[in-house]
Amino acid sequence: MTPLIIDTDPGVDDAFAIALACASPEVDLLGVTTVFGNVGLAMTTRNALRLLALYGREDVPVAAGADRPLVFPHPHRARYVHGQDGLSGLSDSLPERATGLANTDAVSLLASLLDRAAQPVTIVPIGPLTNIALLLAVHPSLTGKIARIVIMGGAMNGGNVTAGAEFNVWSDPEAARRVLAEEEVPTVLVPMDLTVRCAVDTSWLDRLAASGERGRTLVSLTSVYREHYRKSLGRDGTVLHDAVAMAEAISPGLLKTSPMPLDVECGQGAGRGMIIADRRSTAAREESGVRRGRTVDVALDAELDTVREFMLERLSS
Amino acid sequence: MTPLIIDTDPGVDDAFAIALACASPEVDLLGVTTVFGNVGLAMTTRNALRLLALYGREDVPVAAGADRPLVFPHPHRARYVHGQDGLSGLSDSLPERATGLANTDAVSLLASLLDRAAQPVTIVPIGPLTNIALLLAVHPSLTGKIARIVIMGGAMNGGNVTAGAEFNVWSDPEAARRVLAEEEVPTVLVPMDLTVRCAVDTSWLDRLAASGERGRTLVSLTSVYREHYRKSLGRDGTVLHDAVAMAEAISPGLLKTSPMPLDVECGQGAGRGMIIADRRSTAAREESGVRRGRTVDVALDAELDTVREFMLERLSS
Amino acid sequence: MTPLIIDTDPGVDDAFAIALACASPEVDLLGVTTVFGNVGLAMTTRNALRLLALYGREDVPVAAGADRPLVFPHPHRARYVHGQDGLSGLSDSLPERATGLANTDAVSLLASLLDRAAQPVTIVPIGPLTNIALLLAVHPSLTGKIARIVIMGGAMNGGNVTAGAEFNVWSDPEAARRVLAEEEVPTVLVPMDLTVRCAVDTSWLDRLAASGERGRTLVSLTSVYREHYRKSLGRDGTVLHDAVAMAEAISPGLLKTSPMPLDVECGQGAGRGMIIADRRSTAAREESGVRRGRTVDVALDAELDTVREFMLERLSS
Amino acid sequence: MTPLIIDTDPGVDDAFAIALACASPEVDLLGVTTVFGNVGLAMTTRNALRLLALYGREDVPVAAGADRPLVFPHPHRARYVHGQDGLSGLSDSLPERATGLANTDAVSLLASLLDRAAQPVTIVPIGPLTNIALLLAVHPSLTGKIARIVIMGGAMNGGNVTAGAEFNVWSDPEAARRVLAEEEVPTVLVPMDLTVRCAVDTSWLDRLAASGERGRTLVSLTSVYREHYRKSLGRDGTVLHDAVAMAEAISPGLLKTSPMPLDVECGQGAGRGMIIADRRSTAAREESGVRRGRTVDVALDAELDTVREFMLERLSS
Repeated sequence: MTPLIIDTDPGVDDAFAIALACASPEVDLLGVTTVFGNVGLAMTTRNALRLLALYGREDVPVAAGADRPLVFPHPHRARYVHGQDGLSGLSDSLPERATGLANTDAVSLLASLLDRAAQPVTIVPIGPLTNIALLLAVHPSLTGKIARIVIMGGAMNGGNVTAGAEFNVWSDPEAARRVLAEEEVPTVLVPMDLTVRCAVDTSWLDRLAASGERGRTLVSLTSVYREHYRKSLGRDGTVLHDAVAMAEAISPGLLKTSPMPLDVECGQGAGRGMIIADRRSTAAREESGVRRGRTVDVALDAELDTVREFMLERLSS
Repeated sequence: MTPLIIDTDPGVDDAFAIALACASPEVDLLGVTTVFGNVGLAMTTRNALRLLALYGREDVPVAAGADRPLVFPHPHRARYVHGQDGLSGLSDSLPERATGLANTDAVSLLASLLDRAAQPVTIVPIGPLTNIALLLAVHPSLTGKIARIVIMGGAMNGGNVTAGAEFNVWSDPEAARRVLAEEEVPTVLVPMDLTVRCAVDTSWLDRLAASGERGRTLVSLTSVYREHYRKSLGRDGTVLHDAVAMAEAISPGLLKTSPMPLDVECGQGAGRGMIIADRRSTAAREESGVRRGRTVDVALDAELDTVREFMLERLSS
Repeated sequence: MTPLIIDTDPGVDDAFAIALACASPEVDLLGVTTVFGNVGLAMTTRNALRLLALYGREDVPVAAGADRPLVFPHPHRARYVHGQDGLSGLSDSLPERATGLANTDAVSLLASLLDRAAQPVTIVPIGPLTNIALLLAVHPSLTGKIARIVIMGGAMNGGNVTAGAEFNVWSDPEAARRVLAEEEVPTVLVPMDLTVRCAVDTSWLDRLAASGERGRTLVSLTSVYREHYRKSLGRDGTVLHDAVAMAEAISPGLLKTSPMPLDVECGQGAGRGMIIADRRSTAAREESGVRRGRTVDVALDAELDTVREFMLERLSS
Repeated sequence: MTPLIIDTDPGVDDAFAIALACASPEVDLLGVTTVFGNVGLAMTTRNALRLLALYGREDVPVAAGADRPLVFPHPHRARYVHGQDGLSGLSDSLPERATGLANTDAVSLLASLLDRAAQPVTIVPIGPLTNIALLLAVHPSLTGKIARIVIMGGAMNGGNVTAGAEFNVWSDPEAARRVLAEEEVPTVLVPMDLTVRCAVDTSWLDRLAASGERGRTLVSLTSVYREHYRKSLGRDGTVLHDAVAMAEAISPGLLKTSPMPLDVECGQGAGRGMIIADRRSTAAREESGVRRGRTVDVALDAELDTVREFMLERLSS
């Protein structure tokens, strides 16, 4: 069993990631924390509760975290991608959860879950990294209780929200820099380069919809989102960014990773929110006189169909 | 009685500020939290404990906080100002405290003290603002329990650690920006422009040393620090930055403040860590099309001798 | 005789500066170059020609220079200060000049005038520093032909166009940095802190208007500008920024200067365009480990009435 | 015939680019301008003269340009790549040129050559873009005389001198931004991603060395450089960056280009000098609300062996 905590801003692809965790027998879902991002915190928190309710998970503690980035205001929301409510306008169709929020904030819940954990925990941040940066800054002694942080975020070869930056990292570059460039915790970064390659097609979605009530519900949540990707990809495909990271969290090694020193551009210019990965050979890097920092395992490749089948099989079960 | 918490990185002038709080009958000292800054966290924490012991305050809970800034590494320490141990090499001469650290971290102690407080609390941050930024980011609901934040930091007309930046703000500009530019809590900023004008001279220090054991000890801690200011000011004066802010915290209105929108430069260039205060008239500001943000009360003036006498009288008592 | 070149973006206060040069017998006005700034280049160039015509200076070569900053686009014009045409809407009332533009660009004219000069030349840039940065970058060998650069620009203690930045420096911070922080040419910077203190009042303007045709014309050009300062200063005063710098160029030593290392913030954040002056003592600066760069003579003080009388006497003659 | 000007900082691969232009019958080499970069300006200028002498080009005017970047100082030279003299320590082995420098600076030579050109000219900048930015800023009216600017510079997927930046762009990001993001001149950018893929192997170098005296000399200049690439690439290959751009300049269409809006990160953080290319679909770009700027044709692909053969055939002739 993999003890696991999700930090999330649902969001359509977050919904698939949460579902994937709920539907995976090897996951011991310790808690869910929420963060601003695709939509505001009140909505992401409401969505997280309802998605857990869809899977009958009244037992999982949920706490709301940051409603804004660490240092600078958040320029805008991703409503054109995920719809006004973050779930293509269909969040009302999900069941309400009987169990409300835990009586604490996200960082305190994370700290308390880690503190009490019998074995190291996998944390899966699939929104802006604000809560995680705060956790590591306030509770450095708990890093030993973290097995891995498996993050959906960043872009190696061109972004989505700007030319260079991916939405999650761009939403709080300072928090991302703290987590990706300054901490020694084992970390996997699943950038959009790979998640886009893992896009699922109509047939995949049809098979999921046909698998049962939950599958049908999940597919229904993609309507606005799918339209966005139809335009953006130029074909009928849906990119389940967060679910790809979750798949790796559940099944370590499903994605192929390479260790790289990472940095995040935190200036206010055109590069704000870009991941800067040092892809040079060690020899080239050393010759240029740049000190090698900590490294993050960046997921750059995978057997794409294996990933798609993994997700479909779990979500259909 | 003013319920009060000190967040500090002692530091010679921090020592005077802590002493001032301990020696003031109207202060209800709820706790002390420590932060990296003038020297490393282990040393600032040790110093804070011993300074409380000097005043017999075994009862005050102390917790250690951030050992580094929020986002970027800390470039260097201020050992040339405060000595290797932060107290002119004389920290060993202070008594050890029997009571050790509280069984929690700084941010959790701050939250817990605020949560339990019967009336709004004054927080007096006199080091880098890392702990305070974390507190406000993790526990936004507690801001209602804060009466005032009285900060020593920043420079309006030229800095100390760089041409434009004062040490505390420069040490963690991102944290300073969060606290000064993004929060709605009533805040007083006491910049070095005023604290330098409040410098005390030999006669003041002699009177303090003659006042008794504690006064003599405090004065002894200034040796390295005083040498720094002798060179830097060009005369035998000692700048008790943090104690000036503490005086305002204890005796609201002792300093004359003006409300101003503030920002902090967080880029990596020459201006890093500078305070940007909008000193223009409202008319001028509006004509330039810039939105007015929240304002901070900046202490720009005072009856200097009144401040010096206030500090001397308390510390000599 | 002081050989002198004006680089300008008229602008109401530029008009007074040009007039001051024309009206000063010790000035040998070698040329005028124009730059974008208060309004666009076409308008500043037209205004410069007409202002010279007002003083009968058909002989002075004029060339148009940069219509935009070096690196980034120019965010906006200062039309709310100087009116749509840069001269309170009254530029049409000035005489046309018979002699048109020189058959070259501003940088080439500057280079050619310097190259041919028998003695070192004073350059007086009173707009964005784009042309001057280009001159120094393209023709480094000509710096020996420059006696002094006397610049109106920058703010030490709070700006006008933003909280921290003055219009000329903010309009092209990269050019300003090149000129102020990277060149070894003797340079005087006249910041707005001093020019605002040299503001003239109604009586001064009335005396000028009564002095004759040209004086009356100059005063007429201030209408929109004066209204701006009435609001911004809260009294009926007019700030003749550029004319104060010109007064120093004509009469070296009229302003009291202090040598300081300068830098310019070129990031995209709140501090963009701020001057960073190192006002610390040499001892303090060295202790902080910062290398001392070249220094600029910054005009921080003057006998204010002497400056006002100097300007009035010349302009009334 | 293609009228062509080279702006260069030789540099080993610059040597191959200059040779390629000299050896190509369809090139009318109007002039060569030099810039700081791989080594200092005095050395790059000396090298440019000698390389022209190797090809008997006493007729081509050469002028020295910028010895430093536009705005900030240049952090370091690339001596570990190109050797102390920029040509693997072998520049003394090249013949001296009888004709010295033109009696003017680089920007003025560029302007004069463009002004006199009967047909639009191709400019091939293969060093830092300082001279070209200055040319465009000082002489905007001459852009109509430029057929194409074919630039070697930038990295799309990871740099060489830092994790994200390629040497030429990083050496003067402000100049690069002016040229790549702010001008409307038809521009081809040949980034290192493609030039590295065009690396030549031992067999290619052996064939060149066997082709005659000049070929043997060119190959001899690669010794230090080749050693660098042996380490950095992990095999015996030599990357002729600048020659690849020159090949495209000589034979338009040899490289496959895609139009993209470009920007350059000019902050002082980790991303300094990175190219930010907008690789998103038009639909995706518009949905994110970002205005589409001018576009540059970025060379991302080519028939690699065709490029290698083109270079070898010309250089062997």
